[in-house]
Amino acid sequence: MLRTKTIDDFLKTLASDAPTPGGGSVAALNGALGCALLEMVLDLTLGKEKFKEVWPDLEPIKTELEGLREELADSIDRDAKAYDTVTAAFKMPKGTPEEKTARKEAIQTALKTAAETPKATARYIHQVLKLAGDVAEKGNPNVLSDAGVGAACLLAGMEAALMNIAINLGGIKDEAYTHQMKIEIDFLAKEGEKLASAVMAYARKGIGLEEE
Amino acid sequence: MLRTKTIDDFLKTLASDAPTPGGGSVAALNGALGCALLEMVLDLTLGKEKFKEVWPDLEPIKTELEGLREELADSIDRDAKAYDTVTAAFKMPKGTPEEKTARKEAIQTALKTAAETPKATARYIHQVLKLAGDVAEKGNPNVLSDAGVGAACLLAGMEAALMNIAINLGGIKDEAYTHQMKIEIDFLAKEGEKLASAVMAYARKGIGLEEE
Repeated sequence: MLRTKTIDDFLKTLASDAPTPGGGSVAALNGALGCALLEMVLDLTLGKEKFKEVWPDLEPIKTELEGLREELADSIDRDAKAYDTVTAAFKMPKGTPEEKTARKEAIQTALKTAAETPKATARYIHQVLKLAGDVAEKGNPNVLSDAGVGAACLLAGMEAALMNIAINLGGIKDEAYTHQMKIEIDFLAKEGEKLASAVMAYARKGIGLEEE
Repeated sequence: MLRTKTIDDFLKTLASDAPTPGGGSVAALNGALGCALLEMVLDLTLGKEKFKEVWPDLEPIKTELEGLREELADSIDRDAKAYDTVTAAFKMPKGTPEEKTARKEAIQTALKTAAETPKATARYIHQVLKLAGDVAEKGNPNVLSDAGVGAACLLAGMEAALMNIAINLGGIKDEAYTHQMKIEIDFLAKEGEKLASAVMAYARKGIGLEEE
């Protein structure tokens, strides 16, 4: 499991020519990192009496983020598994016409799974981003930069996930499917950009970094 | 050491109210992730005969990236250590006027170290980004999305590092120092945005994701 690797080992395997992990796992990892940073901001707000007023707003967000971080951390491995299925399908025998057909079908199925996995990652990240604005605005201002960094990670994770959907769509022959997925990519790209940029701009302003 | 923690443990500590790791360590981690993804693209190019023509261009880049990844991975811990020094300085006694002066000076010194650490991270990331264009354009096009994800990580790492410089500058009284640092932040922000966006746009185009 990638989740139980050390950071050093994960980086070393990532840098190697091993087929996994790749960009799809890094997308999920960035989603989990962004989620964790927002949770840290909440921990340093829910623990302090002087922010008592916002506790009722922030407590349910904390519970939601905990669940989303677990899904995102798990998606680091889910993505690698999906990619391994693609590699296996490409290695199937193609000696007879029957084998060729079976291989083609297996590749198409595997590519769809490999596109669905980063789509799920992108959707989890979207859910986290919908909560990020409240965390940044109502959370402890001493850790506002951490909320901003969280948003930067979530945006990188979103962009990474969408690129990983797109690269798999390239090999999928089902046009109705790819058409639908492209609509989804467009929606998630716009949402991600809008939500993450708002939090990053808020954080930058709060810590004295002018907007360009 | 944070580098030798598992990803699960790192995420758990990050999400907690423990003072470290925080956004500064995540900045360095994203730099290391981006670097590793570019190295992966190189590994899958330098190993394949059909890309033989670009090997001489890419081999020296690989050596450079290996060194930069090591620096960035180490910066995950360096940042946490610098932040711990700030926390320690704030906890110094302030009973007598002498103690007050000593504490103030220790805080100022610690805050400068805490600003220099993400500045070093930002500079390493800048060096990686200067190599990213060649990796994306000359590397194996089958893993173009990984180069794009790498650039997204590097951009997030850069933004994260700059926010972490800025939040420390807030407490530093030496105006000549903060003025100089702000010039540096502006330069690195523009460079990061320019270099990363170019690679991401190139990758998006190559994998069929239209630019908005």
